[in-house]
Amino acid sequence: MITTIAFDADDTLWHTERIFIDTKDKYKKLLAEYVDGDWIEQHLDETETNNIKHFGYGVKGFTLSMIETACELTEGRITGDKIKEIIGFAKEMLGAPIDVLEGVRETIEELAGKYRLMVITKGDLLDQETKLARSGLGDYFDAFEIVPRKDAKIYKYVMRRHEIAPDEFLMVGNSLKSDVLPVLEAGARAVFVPYETEWFHERVSDEELEGKQFGRIETMRGLPAWLNEEK
Amino acid sequence: MITTIAFDADDTLWHTERIFIDTKDKYKKLLAEYVDGDWIEQHLDETETNNIKHFGYGVKGFTLSMIETACELTEGRITGDKIKEIIGFAKEMLGAPIDVLEGVRETIEELAGKYRLMVITKGDLLDQETKLARSGLGDYFDAFEIVPRKDAKIYKYVMRRHEIAPDEFLMVGNSLKSDVLPVLEAGARAVFVPYETEWFHERVSDEELEGKQFGRIETMRGLPAWLNEEK
Repeated sequence: MITTIAFDADDTLWHTERIFIDTKDKYKKLLAEYVDGDWIEQHLDETETNNIKHFGYGVKGFTLSMIETACELTEGRITGDKIKEIIGFAKEMLGAPIDVLEGVRETIEELAGKYRLMVITKGDLLDQETKLARSGLGDYFDAFEIVPRKDAKIYKYVMRRHEIAPDEFLMVGNSLKSDVLPVLEAGARAVFVPYETEWFHERVSDEELEGKQFGRIETMRGLPAWLNEEK
Repeated sequence: MITTIAFDADDTLWHTERIFIDTKDKYKKLLAEYVDGDWIEQHLDETETNNIKHFGYGVKGFTLSMIETACELTEGRITGDKIKEIIGFAKEMLGAPIDVLEGVRETIEELAGKYRLMVITKGDLLDQETKLARSGLGDYFDAFEIVPRKDAKIYKYVMRRHEIAPDEFLMVGNSLKSDVLPVLEAGARAVFVPYETEWFHERVSDEELEGKQFGRIETMRGLPAWLNEEK
């Protein structure tokens, strides 16, 4: 019954959060002479959350938040050279090699002949497109949809655009909030593959999950077996 | 024969370059105590051009380039407070009211019942989507395509996706390089509406234009008459 499988990209197909975590570590070292590490992290998370309405998601917005936080925490004493280093972090992040998650390549290869595969992801178009190309997975996907947010309305729109009925559609991703709950609301199915860390913007409460039916696999390798059981 | 008219967005439907020009003026004032204005502008243009491969187009990448340039020109002496002001410029730009170009609203209204209307634009998805919503023009368009670049391949892809034959398709925009030449190459027609300023990334040589057939109107008000003549 499932004809189309759509995958989230960041931290579902390839590691992204790791790059952010590594960058945060470098950032904390850079500011260590001015401020304590925990205090930096907390303040950065706050700035990032406040700035999402201006800058959305992605490396460039994150970098502007790092710079803003650095200016605030050092009360303006941060030097231009350190700010330039932070901009260097952004260029490194955007050019970082794509680290495909364990088991993803084999699973995608196996499913590509049997299902129509898509990617549905938030983020910056240019950034995501070059990541897909650099991942070497691009050829397996029939469609690549960059969406401004992931809610039921957007999922319905993508299904309609590709002429897929909700009962033919499966979404696979590492975020309950973005890849699971809105897909169920749109009448389709979803499989949750938790990532090694959970992003603080994406937490959902137990109440929101109550009574919700969706698959859960520990790594992408579990997807073919899950699909066989659903048949 | 033309059934679908696609419009570029920035500086075709609404003013964008003006916001960048205003911001550059504020930026030059901010740095005036360190460096001369012309030198700032030249250096910023260079940084921006070099950074496009990392950051793409749009306000966030432009802001990172402003910050990088400020650090370089002041040899690191720029203060954190001034950097914070530059980040403030970004938030202002992203939240600025949308200033629809003269004649656009009436023309779009007039054409909406007769043609299928689309927007095809580069830039950041979130940013462009909120601009379309804030412009009040959103309801007139049947499709809104954010593309990573504007070349013949992308235009062919968009036409195929919407099942439009090239001879039914017209693109209207203020860039010969992005809105005219690649559209002609894709076998469709194009109308050029020059904006009050020309963006230095978008210049094309006379040789590239030689023998090319496309429409030219002075403002959007000229579009219905151009369409009548094409019939």
